[in-house]
Formats: sequence, C-alpha cells, structure tokens
Amino acid sequence: MSKVIKGGTIVTADRQWQADVLIEGEKIAEIGENLRGDEVIDAEGAYVIPGGIDPHTHLEMPFMGTTAAETFETGTFAAAAGGTTMLVDFCLPGEDGSLLNAIDAWDKKSKDQICVDISYHMAITGWNEDIFNEMDAVVNQRGINTFKHFMAYKGALMIEDDEMFASFKRCAELGALPLVHAENGDIVQELQQKYMAMGVTGPEGHAYSRPPEVEGEAANRAIMIADAAGTPLYIVHVSCEQAHEAIRRARQKGMRVFGEPLIQHLTLDESEYFNKDWQYAARRVMSPPFRSKDHQDGLWAGLAAGSLQVVATDHAAFTDEQKRMGVDNFGMIPNGTGGLEERMAMLWTQGVETGRLTPEEFVAVTSSNIAKILNIYPMKGGINVGGDADVVVWDPKLGRTITTATAKSILDYNVFEGMEVSASPRYTLSRGEVVWAAGQNSQPMPGRGRFVKRPPAASASKALSKWKALNTPRKIERDPMNIPAGI
Amino acid sequence: MSKVIKGGTIVTADRQWQADVLIEGEKIAEIGENLRGDEVIDAEGAYVIPGGIDPHTHLEMPFMGTTAAETFETGTFAAAAGGTTMLVDFCLPGEDGSLLNAIDAWDKKSKDQICVDISYHMAITGWNEDIFNEMDAVVNQRGINTFKHFMAYKGALMIEDDEMFASFKRCAELGALPLVHAENGDIVQELQQKYMAMGVTGPEGHAYSRPPEVEGEAANRAIMIADAAGTPLYIVHVSCEQAHEAIRRARQKGMRVFGEPLIQHLTLDESEYFNKDWQYAARRVMSPPFRSKDHQDGLWAGLAAGSLQVVATDHAAFTDEQKRMGVDNFGMIPNGTGGLEERMAMLWTQGVETGRLTPEEFVAVTSSNIAKILNIYPMKGGINVGGDADVVVWDPKLGRTITTATAKSILDYNVFEGMEVSASPRYTLSRGEVVWAAGQNSQPMPGRGRFVKRPPAASASKALSKWKALNTPRKIERDPMNIPAGI
Amino acid sequence: MSKVIKGGTIVTADRQWQADVLIEGEKIAEIGENLRGDEVIDAEGAYVIPGGIDPHTHLEMPFMGTTAAETFETGTFAAAAGGTTMLVDFCLPGEDGSLLNAIDAWDKKSKDQICVDISYHMAITGWNEDIFNEMDAVVNQRGINTFKHFMAYKGALMIEDDEMFASFKRCAELGALPLVHAENGDIVQELQQKYMAMGVTGPEGHAYSRPPEVEGEAANRAIMIADAAGTPLYIVHVSCEQAHEAIRRARQKGMRVFGEPLIQHLTLDESEYFNKDWQYAARRVMSPPFRSKDHQDGLWAGLAAGSLQVVATDHAAFTDEQKRMGVDNFGMIPNGTGGLEERMAMLWTQGVETGRLTPEEFVAVTSSNIAKILNIYPMKGGINVGGDADVVVWDPKLGRTITTATAKSILDYNVFEGMEVSASPRYTLSRGEVVWAAGQNSQPMPGRGRFVKRPPAASASKALSKWKALNTPRKIERDPMNIPAGI
Amino acid sequence: MSKVIKGGTIVTADRQWQADVLIEGEKIAEIGENLRGDEVIDAEGAYVIPGGIDPHTHLEMPFMGTTAAETFETGTFAAAAGGTTMLVDFCLPGEDGSLLNAIDAWDKKSKDQICVDISYHMAITGWNEDIFNEMDAVVNQRGINTFKHFMAYKGALMIEDDEMFASFKRCAELGALPLVHAENGDIVQELQQKYMAMGVTGPEGHAYSRPPEVEGEAANRAIMIADAAGTPLYIVHVSCEQAHEAIRRARQKGMRVFGEPLIQHLTLDESEYFNKDWQYAARRVMSPPFRSKDHQDGLWAGLAAGSLQVVATDHAAFTDEQKRMGVDNFGMIPNGTGGLEERMAMLWTQGVETGRLTPEEFVAVTSSNIAKILNIYPMKGGINVGGDADVVVWDPKLGRTITTATAKSILDYNVFEGMEVSASPRYTLSRGEVVWAAGQNSQPMPGRGRFVKRPPAASASKALSKWKALNTPRKIERDPMNIPAGI
Repeated sequence: MSKVIKGGTIVTADRQWQADVLIEGEKIAEIGENLRGDEVIDAEGAYVIPGGIDPHTHLEMPFMGTTAAETFETGTFAAAAGGTTMLVDFCLPGEDGSLLNAIDAWDKKSKDQICVDISYHMAITGWNEDIFNEMDAVVNQRGINTFKHFMAYKGALMIEDDEMFASFKRCAELGALPLVHAENGDIVQELQQKYMAMGVTGPEGHAYSRPPEVEGEAANRAIMIADAAGTPLYIVHVSCEQAHEAIRRARQKGMRVFGEPLIQHLTLDESEYFNKDWQYAARRVMSPPFRSKDHQDGLWAGLAAGSLQVVATDHAAFTDEQKRMGVDNFGMIPNGTGGLEERMAMLWTQGVETGRLTPEEFVAVTSSNIAKILNIYPMKGGINVGGDADVVVWDPKLGRTITTATAKSILDYNVFEGMEVSASPRYTLSRGEVVWAAGQNSQPMPGRGRFVKRPPAASASKALSKWKALNTPRKIERDPMNIPAGI
Repeated sequence: MSKVIKGGTIVTADRQWQADVLIEGEKIAEIGENLRGDEVIDAEGAYVIPGGIDPHTHLEMPFMGTTAAETFETGTFAAAAGGTTMLVDFCLPGEDGSLLNAIDAWDKKSKDQICVDISYHMAITGWNEDIFNEMDAVVNQRGINTFKHFMAYKGALMIEDDEMFASFKRCAELGALPLVHAENGDIVQELQQKYMAMGVTGPEGHAYSRPPEVEGEAANRAIMIADAAGTPLYIVHVSCEQAHEAIRRARQKGMRVFGEPLIQHLTLDESEYFNKDWQYAARRVMSPPFRSKDHQDGLWAGLAAGSLQVVATDHAAFTDEQKRMGVDNFGMIPNGTGGLEERMAMLWTQGVETGRLTPEEFVAVTSSNIAKILNIYPMKGGINVGGDADVVVWDPKLGRTITTATAKSILDYNVFEGMEVSASPRYTLSRGEVVWAAGQNSQPMPGRGRFVKRPPAASASKALSKWKALNTPRKIERDPMNIPAGI
Repeated sequence: MSKVIKGGTIVTADRQWQADVLIEGEKIAEIGENLRGDEVIDAEGAYVIPGGIDPHTHLEMPFMGTTAAETFETGTFAAAAGGTTMLVDFCLPGEDGSLLNAIDAWDKKSKDQICVDISYHMAITGWNEDIFNEMDAVVNQRGINTFKHFMAYKGALMIEDDEMFASFKRCAELGALPLVHAENGDIVQELQQKYMAMGVTGPEGHAYSRPPEVEGEAANRAIMIADAAGTPLYIVHVSCEQAHEAIRRARQKGMRVFGEPLIQHLTLDESEYFNKDWQYAARRVMSPPFRSKDHQDGLWAGLAAGSLQVVATDHAAFTDEQKRMGVDNFGMIPNGTGGLEERMAMLWTQGVETGRLTPEEFVAVTSSNIAKILNIYPMKGGINVGGDADVVVWDPKLGRTITTATAKSILDYNVFEGMEVSASPRYTLSRGEVVWAAGQNSQPMPGRGRFVKRPPAASASKALSKWKALNTPRKIERDPMNIPAGI
Repeated sequence: MSKVIKGGTIVTADRQWQADVLIEGEKIAEIGENLRGDEVIDAEGAYVIPGGIDPHTHLEMPFMGTTAAETFETGTFAAAAGGTTMLVDFCLPGEDGSLLNAIDAWDKKSKDQICVDISYHMAITGWNEDIFNEMDAVVNQRGINTFKHFMAYKGALMIEDDEMFASFKRCAELGALPLVHAENGDIVQELQQKYMAMGVTGPEGHAYSRPPEVEGEAANRAIMIADAAGTPLYIVHVSCEQAHEAIRRARQKGMRVFGEPLIQHLTLDESEYFNKDWQYAARRVMSPPFRSKDHQDGLWAGLAAGSLQVVATDHAAFTDEQKRMGVDNFGMIPNGTGGLEERMAMLWTQGVETGRLTPEEFVAVTSSNIAKILNIYPMKGGINVGGDADVVVWDPKLGRTITTATAKSILDYNVFEGMEVSASPRYTLSRGEVVWAAGQNSQPMPGRGRFVKRPPAASASKALSKWKALNTPRKIERDPMNIPAGI
C-alpha cells in the first residue's frame, strides 16, 4: 500500500521546494507534483525533511557501576516522537574483551525493543592482537565502520596514545572511521582528587575538574595521532572553543576532521551545576560538562561555517536514584543526560528561528551530514528516490513546552524542562511506516526497527588514503661507499 | 527526441552512484537503471557530472583602454569544450552610469554569440540615487542578484568605503549578494609608482605592487562592511593566505562570507613573473597576481574544509599585442589571463587525482556550490530530475597536454601551456544538446545559449536577515527627567 | 641640595631590589645601600618606581566645536598627584594647516602652566607638500618623533589611505613613528546616521555606531599600510579583541607594531552607556567606546604577553555642560573621559594586586616601554644613574576611594567614581623636585615643567630599515631581445 | 687589580650607550665616562655586552648507550671563545633515582673542569615520594629552581601526564619552574617502527619520525598541564610553527609560557638529512630535527615579538664514531649537535645584521631574558653595577668562517662548517677575568668556573600564584535539605 506526503515543502541539505513524496513499501518511490497514493499524509503548511539521525546514544549502557535507565524501547520511541528515525549506539566490549561478542550482546538487548533503525559504533577500550583481528570482521561482516576511543575515564574505558595510534592505523587500513571522546583522563582524575580534597564534593566539582582546556588538549592530541596514522577523525561532543579551535586549525591544514556538538552544549550552560538543589545539578552531570555561555556562539557559528558538521545528544539517561550514587562525591555521579526527543525541536527553535542556521543547514546537521560520514547516504539522510522512507513532516507551528509529563523518555525529569520549542513533528515515518503522529501518542511496535549495516571506505577516507600514499616520505638512496661501517 | 546517458557513474556534490540519465528536451526526465532513450550517449567508464559553472569571466570587456579579446562566441565554445555549461560575466556600466543600459549593451554583445548559458554580475562603480533606484530593476526585472564592487583600479572602477556600505545595504534590502574584488587600490597605486620610480618597469613590478597583504587588508575591510550592512558577502579571486585568513576568521564568528579561488592561483605561482622573456611574463599579468607556492596549500585545504566554496577563472584574455601596451610600464599591461577551457581538467588533475579533493567536492566547487550561492540550484548545478540537462560525461582517462594549438580560446598562447591533465569531457551537454564531443571538435551554434535569470533572497540571505532583525541594538528608554536640557 | 630616597624597594621594568636613590639636582646620582643626602625622602614599606608616562592626553584641545576643559595646569597637577611625571599631548594643526605653527600654539598654551614635563605628538590631518617639508623640521628641530593619524572623525581629522601611506613613508625616511587612531570613519558615520534614523539618539548609540569590528578593520588596514611603507606603527587606544588580534597577527609575522590599551577599557565596560541617567552615560562617551567585558581579559593578557606595551588614558575632559551639546544626538557629545590621576592606581589595583601583572610589568607598561618607544629612555622611564629624577614613592598600602571631591581634575565628575584603589603615590618627584606629597595636597608651581625633545631613529626603526633595505624586490634583468616593441 | 673596558658602546636588553665599564675583582664597580683602571681592555669600535648564557647543554651526558663527548672542560672553553660566560647543564638521575645523588655526580664531573660558570636543571624522569621530597632540597639547599621533563624518549627518560602534573604542582608549591622537552614519545616510537619497517633506516628517517605535529601536540599538552597545575612553563628547543603556535595561543590567554628556539633550528634546515653522505646527515641528528625552511621565519619573528624569549644550543656532542652506532637504524644514532661556540656569532650575523633583531633584542635573547627567567638577574645577564663582571667585548667587524680546525669543541666536525659570521668576541670576561682574547687562543684555567645557585619564586611565578589563589573555584553552599541521601 502506497502513501503520499502531500502539500509540504521538502527541505534537504541542498534546497527547498514544494513537492509531494510518494512512498511504496519502505522506499521513496517518487518526488513530484500532484502525486497520488493509497494513503495521504497531510503536510500542508509543513516541511518534509529527512528523519533525524542521532549518532550518539548510550541506551542500557553498563557504566560507572550501574546501567543507563533508558531502554532501547523507550529510547527509540522518544526518538520517533522527536523526529529521529535512526540512532547509533555505542557498543562496549564486556569482560572477555571480544568485539564480536559485544555486538552479539548489544543485538540481543536491542533486537526486540527497537522502534526505529539503529546501528552501533564499536568501542576500542584496550589493544591486542585479538582486537586487531576482530576489527576486520566488525567492519566487513557486521557492517560497523566506526570505532570509538575514550581518552578519559582512566582505569575504565580510557586507552593510551600508542594504542590509539595502533587502532587508528587499523581503521585507516580498513577504511573505517575512528571516533574519540576527547578529554585528558589523567588530568581529569588529578583534578577530581584535587577538588575532593578541597571539600568540593558537589556537582560543581564535576565542572571544575573537566575544564575546557582539558578537552581542547585531548582533541588536539587525537587530531595529531589521526594525521600520523593517515585517517580522518570524528570528535564527539565538542563542547568548547578550545576543542573547536583545534578542529578548525586541523581543517585549515587540509586534515579531515569532523566535530559533533551536542544540543545540550548549544543550549544549556554551566550555571546549571551551581544550582542550590543538588538533585537538579546532578541531573545535568555529563562529560564534557556544560560550559560557560561564551562557548556557545562559537559552536553555533561552526555549524553554519562547516567546521562542525553534526548535532547529537550523547543520550545516556540515569534516574534520580542512580544519580544519588554520587551524593558524597561528584566523581561517582553517573555521567549522562537525555535529549533524544528534544534535539530536533530545540535546534530548530534556537537555530533556524533565530536565523543562525538555514533550514537546509538544519537538515544537514541533524541528518544528511552524519549519513554521509557514516557512509549510508543516500539510503539514509535524504529525501531521495530509492532511499529509505525515513521522513518527518515537520510542523513549524506545532510549538510546545518541554516537560517530563509528556516526554517519552523513561526518566522522570528532563534537562530541558520548561523550555519552549516552536516546532515539532506532525508525523514521523520510519521506512514508510508512520511511527509517530502528533496528537495520537501511540508507540510503534517494539522490534520493528532494524540494524543498519554501513560499508567502509567513505569518500573522504578514500581521498585521504590517496593523498597519504602519494605523499609518503621516501628513502634517500645513498651510495654504499658513503655509509660507514657501524660500531 | 530523448537521449539517455548510459553506463556512467553519476557524481554529485553529495554522492556517487551508477545510473543512467534520461533527458527529454532540455530537462533531465529520469535517473535510474536501464533507462532507454532515442539516442544513447555512452558514459561507460566515465563519470556523469553537472556541467561546470564559471562565475567569473570578462568576455569582450572594455578595460584599461582596450577590450578583452575573447568573444562571447569563442569564450563559450572554450567553456563547452572544457565541460563548463554556464558562465557569469561581469557587466560594467558605461559612461552614462546606467545599470540598465549596461545590461542592454551586454545583451546586445552576447546574444547572438553565446554557445552555452550565461548570466551577469552587475558592477557598482559609483554611487548615486539613480544607481540606488536601478538596483531594484536589475534584481527584480532583469534577474541579476549579484553586484560587484572593485576595491582596486583607483580612478577607474574603484569605489570608496561609504559607497560600498551604501550598496551593500541596498543589496541586503533587495536580497542580492555583493561581490568584491579585494585589493586596496590606494596602496596598489602608491606601490606601482614606487616600483616604477625604482626602474622596475617589467611584469615583476606587477607582482611586487600587489602583495598579499594588500589583498588581505581589502578582504578584511569588505567583510566588516558587509557585517555592518547585514549582508552575506562573496569575495572573488581569493589568491592568498591573508585573504583566506580573513574569510576564515569571519566565518568562525558566524558571518556568511564566501570565497572563490581561481584555478590559476591554485596551480601557478609568482615565479612566472620573473621569466626572462617579457612576453611570457606579461601574458601572466592578472590581479591579484600569482602568489608564492606557500599560499597554494591553504587554498586547496580551504576547498576541502569548506572555508572556500568555488573555483573560477576570471577569464579575461588579451592578445600579445594588447599586452605590449605595457611594455614600458607594467601598470599598463592589460590585466587578465585565460582558463575557461582548462579549469575543470586542471582541478581534477591536481585536486582529485592527488587526493586533495573527493570527486563530490570537485562537483561542489566547480558547479553546485555556486549554483546555490547564485540561487539557481537545482535548475543548474546538479543532476536532478526536472533540472536543466547541463551534464558532462567526464572521462577520467582522456588525458592530454594543454596547448594553444588545440585550445578553443581566441588567444594564441595559454598560461597552462605544456601542462598535463588526466581527464577531459567526453561529451558536454547544454540543456540536452551535445555541445561538445571529444574527437569531433565541432562548435555549437552561436546564439543557442540563453541568459539565466536568478531570483533574489537565497537561503543564507534570508537567515542572516532574520538574525540581524532579531539582534538589532535597542534604544535605552530613559526617564525624561534624566535627560538634561541641551546647550 | 641633594635628596635621598631611603628604605624602599626599587622596581624597574627588569627587576626589584632594596636600595636607596640619591638625587643631585634634577638627576639620579647614585643607587645603592646606605646612601646619604641633604634631605631624606622616606620610602620605608614602599616601592620606588620610575614616574609614570602617559603618552596620550588632549589638554585644552579644540574638538567637536568646543575645547577640552582640562587645562595644562590642572592636567599636569592631576598627573603628578597620580604618580605620572610626563605626558605626551596631541598637537593639532590649526586652520592654516601648518605643523610648526601648531607647535608654537601648543607651546604658548602649555608653557606657563605645566607642572610636569611634556612632549607632543604631531597630528597629520591632511597631506600636501608643505606638510611633507615641515615634517623634517618637526622631527629634527622641534624634537617630535611621532605623528598621529586619525582614521575616524570623517570630515574633520580623518585622512585617506593614500595620505596615510605618504605620511608613513615620510616617517620611515625621518626615523619617526606613526601613530593611528584606528576606526573606520566612513562606516562610523554611516552607522551614526543609521541609529539616529532609528531614533537612537542617546549615548548607547555612540557604542552601537562604533562596534569592535570597525576598530579591528582600521587597525588591520593601518598595519598593512605601515608594512608597505616600511615603518613601525603604534596603535593608540586598543580597546577590543579585534584590534588586538590584528596586532598579534602582525607581530607574529615579524612586523613591528605596538598597541596601547587605555586604563578605561581595561576596567570599565559598555554597560555604562545603558545607564538610565543620560548625564551619567554621556560622561563615559569616548572613542573607541567601552566594550563588553569579554574584551578585557584579552587586553590584560596582552600586557603580560607583550603583544600590548603601554597603558595610557586618552585624557580628554569635557564638563557636563559640554557633554550636553549632544543631548539630542549622541554624535554631538564631545568624545573624551579622564584618567590622568587614576591610571597608575587603577592598574596596580586591578593588575598587580590580582596577579595579572608583575610589579616589573607594571613599571614597563606605565613608563619604561613608552620611553623606549619614544626614544627618550633612559633619560625618562627608568631608575638609572644619570637619568632624570622622575621618581615615585609608591605606597602599596595607601588605599583610597576614587572620588571627584579629592581629584585634581578640573571636572566635577569622575568615570572611576567610587572605585577602590589599594595603592597611591606617597611622593612624586619630577626632575628631583617633590611635586606631590600625600597628605599635603599642595600644587607644584605651574610652568616648572619642560618640553622634552625626542630624537628620531629608535632601535626598532633602525632594525626595520635595515631589513627593508635588504629585502627590497629586485628588477629582473631581461635581454632587450626578449622585450618586444610596444604598441 | 681593577680593569676598565674602554671606548665601547654598551648594549643591554634595554638600551645602547657609550661608556666605560670599571671592574673590581669579580664585579662591575662603575659604569661611566672616562673611567680609569689598572688595566685597560680596548673596546674601541666594539660593543660591550653581557656574557652569553646558554641554558641548554648536555656535557658528558650518558645517553642512548654512550656518553656525550664534549667535556665540561672543552665545552666551557668553547663557550668562552664564543662569548658565552655561563651555561646550564641538564642533570639526570642515575639508576638509584635520587636527585641529590645525581647533583653530587654532576658536581664531581664538572668541578675541576669548568672554565666558566654553570648551573644545572634537574631532570624528573619518574615519580615517587622520594622525588617529591628531594625536590625541596634541590631547590632550597642546592639552588636549582628548574626541573626538566621529557615527553619523548619512551622507555627511557619519558614520563606520563599524571606524573608531569604531580611534578608541575610540586614546582608550583616550591616556586620552581618546570621545563619540557615537547615531543609525543608514544607516536615517535610508533613512527620510528613504521619507517624502519619501510626500510628507511638512514638519518632522513629521524626527521620523518619526528614531524612538527608531534612536537606541537606535546607542547600544547604540557601547556594545559602547567595551567591546571598553576605554574609557569618553559618549553625547550621550540623548532616549529606548531609548537610556537601553541605557545602564542597560551600567552594570548594570559598563561605564562616561555619558549626557547635553538640557533640550529633558526639557521639550518631539514634538507641536511637528505644529504647523500650518511655521516654528514648523521652528524645533524638531534631532537627535534631541523625543520623545513618555512618554520624559520616564525621563530625569528617570535624573538622580535616576544612570544619566544631565549636562544639556546642543546649542545650535545657525539663523535663520528658514536654516531655510527645508528648506521643500520636511525633510532640508534645518538641525538645531539653542537653550537656552544657558534650561537652568539650566528645569531648576530643572521639576526642583527639582517635587521630581524635589534642589538638590544640580541642581548635579551642570548642573556638577559634567561637570567630573569632563571631568577639570577641582575647578578648575571646584564651590565649592572654590583653584578658579576661577565662581559663580552663584541667586535662587529671580527668576521670569520666557521670551521672545525679552529673550533674549541672536542668534535672533529661542525654543523655550521663553512658558514660566515660577521662578528666575534674580541674579549670574553668571566667574573672579571679575561677568559678569551681573540688572537691569543689560550684556554682559561679548568676549574675556575663556579656553580651558580638560583633562588626560587621568580616574579612571574609569584604573580601567577597570586592569580590562581584568587581564582580558585569555590564550593557551592547547598542547604542540606537540598542534598538527598545517597544510595
């Protein structure tokens, strides 16, 4: 049975135009005027945009001695309700260290729950020959072309520079893309101890112990290592001018570095940690922490200028009870906040409605750019004939006040509580199926989502490989007569 | 009669895929597998790309006491032969100062000659109420949404800062885009006099008298004026790190500034002016001059990073005889070089084949980006159903040595003489008509080209207008009791 | 009769040490331990520092249709009371345009009034052969080695780029140093008209119409022109990151550019202009205007890093009545604020007491650096045997609240009103004479001050001249056979 | 017996003037005109400057399985002959790890050999409580206020980020200054293995495996750690734009970071490693390696702009035989080159004679600045009454060609072989004794040199401590009612 989205203005990363979209099965079959289908989806007065892709979530993640409360079911429902039709979750190796086993474990958790499509980034949290070998299968059999590296969380997820170099080189060989969490874990730990020793045990200590310089340093270091290894690099949750500056500096040298700010860092600031209410502040604890307001202008400008490409959420939701694990020590507060449902609406309201971003740029940074980076465009991330019908009818007049009461997240609080947004999805379609309709509030079928395989060797990787191959330093040929005997 | 381009790999600014392109009349009718048409155009082993757009030409331009030798006929034939299906020429007001009369004059010159489509940028070379008034008609009746401002050529085309501000403000009101030639004309003139007084009369004096700092200064100034006037800005022929740095600095503050390097500055350097052969050196005289090699890496990186968006030619061709006007004084050598036919092949060879650019980026900077900036996308600049069938079958194995003998330009020399390129157009189609086929060498019909109207209010202009309207400083309301009487 | 300053800690730009200072007549005769003199000046518990030099004042200046109210008498008394023993005033040509006549006029005004030593900067407010010729006499006969250029105040003091280039070149020949007031006067005028047209007539319009970008642009332009002319450059009243960035960028290329922030911009911010009390706001009107707080950190850092060298005041004092000239139009409010008496104490309190500056850096930026730049070191600007005994006994515990009631300025208000300072001069000596003693409050004899001649060709000028001479581009020698006949 | 240096032009970091210098015993007794002494040292036509201080030498250093060949005797003789009257050598802990024992060992080696004065920097090559404790004695008993940290030489001298943070914090407490060798040791090792695996075994592999980005990264990281620890930082052998950029960026934020380029990096470039003669290339192997020429302009500009403060040599001399240890593996070539004798003459010739530096700046970067940084000014580093009579009569017409034959170094080659210098010392005085007289060539008495104690808490350290104390983040006081119970 076909569907036609009628009467809207299509917005893609490169243009806006009035046209209908015909969907047959899971795919977009035609785009044009006066199309007909079995079912009509009304887009009058609305935009028709590619479904959002959130490349940074941690659903049901075991972390800091507990497990993130958001399930694959509630998380993907929240995503759908917010206009996001695909998310990429971080898959962490378990105690056996096996990457493939970790994928199996993640599949097991997610499979029967997911309401929209997903993929995984694979985390590299150590280094040995098994990991080296498994990476091939992760890429070429399991369809995962991204590997995450933590430069923070010392003693847990963090890896060292030589391990990072080895993994990045392996990524270069496989045509995969390394991702980094950029904070200097050594210094974070030292500063945590310093502030605890000074009696600063509350959430403000979290902000103090992870200053922007610590993030900027790690971003700069990861960029150097990626350059030495000959691979593009993607830096997650870029929160501050220091990291952004490192990215800009690399890009102006021709290095292929991507940066991902989060909707939280774009719209919330560090004064939240100084709230007199401990629980209020603890709910906002995530890494990197929210920053002072002067960092935000730079992040917004980066999205328009192209030095930052993607807006994500780092959605990792912990309940009030879980947050209380750190009541005596900010270092024990599980790190994470939510945003899966709010990302698109917050970005539209504070970005497009203010004139900071064009509608096309909004689509680029919420969907198309990351689809290209992850090498799944145009199957995902666009409104293209033949592509998946992941489409949102985006109603620029469907405003609301964000509040926990109506949010789909499992959490009973919301870091955006009380903020106004001016737009929302009227309909969200995932592979042709309406998974969200404003006013109906019904949940899509758990398990209907699918795992999306992503092939290696995206275009930027290939170009960089070519460049590096042509620019490898050469051995100087010396006349043996000019080489003395050793001693 | 329909045509189908078969067997190629389509490359657009956002992806590559194998598909056929069906053309009906002047338009692309369908893109897909196994398409059929009345005529088959073989793209086996080749890329199928949007026709190039060169936004910077001066055909038959009256300048420096002579007229550029390249005619609209030879220029557009050279364009077609090189894979360029549209160019934008600069229209200069005549002695009466009228913009509309100038357009009429340009139409008269071009109309019966052009082999591919064209448009004009309108030059603002002075300021008064008539110009203010005519600008509306230029935009809204004549379909020209860009205005060029010369910060150099003192006593001729150059205008002052207050005039530029006035014109930029007018552009902001009209949704038009100002362009600037960024060189400080006052200082250029002073330096010309200085070097002449020192006895440096040869072409090297041209380079000495227009150093990079002089260009960087003007770029920086134009950016400030555009910001104050509330309009995006497009800087033509960005040749050096100083100007590029000013652009990057503006963009990182969220200003909407575009930069256009030329294929000449990307691939040729200032040592050309030191050639012992006067004529050789004089042929390379253009403004800004070629730069030292260390500027080139930055320009290439800017194209990949997105801080520069467009590669053009500033094609302004003068014969050896014309160049000899300056034999005793470099300041009298008519400024200009060619490149219309060579731009695409040179950029592919030195950009894509080296891994500096992806094929998608090649398409972006030769065609799609400028089509978006000029607000004619997707009619031009893409491979889109419904768009104009301006398409090139780009053969990555059709190498050649550039030489005057086979070039289409009217000139009897070529600044790229002897350079090897690895790729060339197998076919060039302009609105569905094959205007160039490799090996056949036949010229398209003069006069078949059309003038392309371009509407105002591109997306970036609209976003910026919104931002500026929301961020206008406000009057402080004071209690009249707190305001003293004047004196 | 000799004097000995006993028991203090001498601070110079390069060190601190405990020693006495013996003064004989007007000069420092000896520095050492246990010195004896006819009269003892107690420095126990205090620092002994070089007298401050304020290189930027406008006393009794005719400007904007009125004359600055501060006289040479009150101004130099305020200076002495604040620890400043020399100031450099700006000498403006009158209607006849003659530089030498202007100096005569300034001499006439100042001669019988000045309580401390002074010098002049000569303003170049137009360009012609007479000015070119007179500059030689200004430098070599009158002992003035600095020329000021206004890039703002269009229609009044402002000059054009080619005039600036000509004057800068002349400075290079004479070994003199050009100074610039860096604001783009064209754009300031346009923005003034814009805000007036919007009904913004109050002092906030002054701030809006002179945004930081307008200052940064002009600074950048002046730097390019100085580089082209081959002369060092000194930029007065650097108030914002944009201008500071331009200076840093120039210096990192080896250009010799100096920057002078004012004590006002370091410590006061633009919120002053939004005060509901018109008179309060109008008193703060100066150009450039105070900036938002985020500019201040950069200026402070620049003083420590050496990218900015001098702290001045731009003391130009207008009474409340004079300020009321602009009650209906902010553009008519005479531009200027005071600070001669407060500069040293404010800088110490907000600089040294906070740890931003070392005591040595305090001395450098208030005295020694400008003495070197003006080529009068070590006669002025240090504690050197043989140098002028311009010395301040600086008491770090002599705090006070700044208030008009006790200030020496002729004005009946003070822009620092109510601010606390932690230190003050216990004694100020000018050429060996005590011209200020805390607690006594007596005024030195008007007319005792002298005009200080300053020789040309400071060290930086000489080095730059050498560099430019060695790096002048050379003529390419061409075989005449290779040069065609002209046409 | 007194001496008087007659007829010269004294140059210090802040001025030039004609005067005689009277020396009594080891000290400067008087500076003035027409002084008389028992012995006259002729300075007619010459400059009289402070003796050079080279803060970076490795004499007789055990390293890479051998020991640097230059002895304290030959090294200090070479220094004297070149106009350097003090050097600071790096003291490395031995196998027992004790800092104090290492100092004893260094004293034993140096004591009877040194011809001029010396001091040590203490290296921190690991971290434990003993080291923490010994640092106090190193500073307060042994008079060493600087600690060196190697970020390279993995498995040998290199330490980790948390160790560096701990040591930097300890430095902050003690008022000592941390130094770093900034190269990322992990990545250097990886790249060494990569190039060896590619068959690049020669000296060019040394350059390839230590690219500028690897140095820039480490500099940036050390700066962040110093900022977090609250201490100034000194970065040794800054060789490239990447490291220099990190320093500039830190300084423009107000961080107190010093940078030291070497005379080698200012004047020699990486093409040396591509020499066909293995021995020639191996002699130039040092870390960081020489860089491409485009890095040099920035270093020179930094010296004039004040972003770099000191020119040193990193003198570590290995014989041809020692260099041959790495004939099959560039990673085994002992790292080090010479320059002790040539530093001053090379810098004068390529710096002052070209106009890049003023004579005052020459004195600043060869002597005065490091004396201030090391907190021994004005005992060393100036021409000051009461200071040590470490004075050089610098003859700007005493040119020569550098050649091994006449050099004082123990080595039988010289990296500056064949280069012309335009100036040389006519006399070098160390604490009043003539230790070098041109034309006489006699060596001073070994053992006459002394160890110079350096007190902690230089001015910049104190200011930074004050700033950090005032800007420590504060605990948020929360109502206990607002803090939940933990779980």
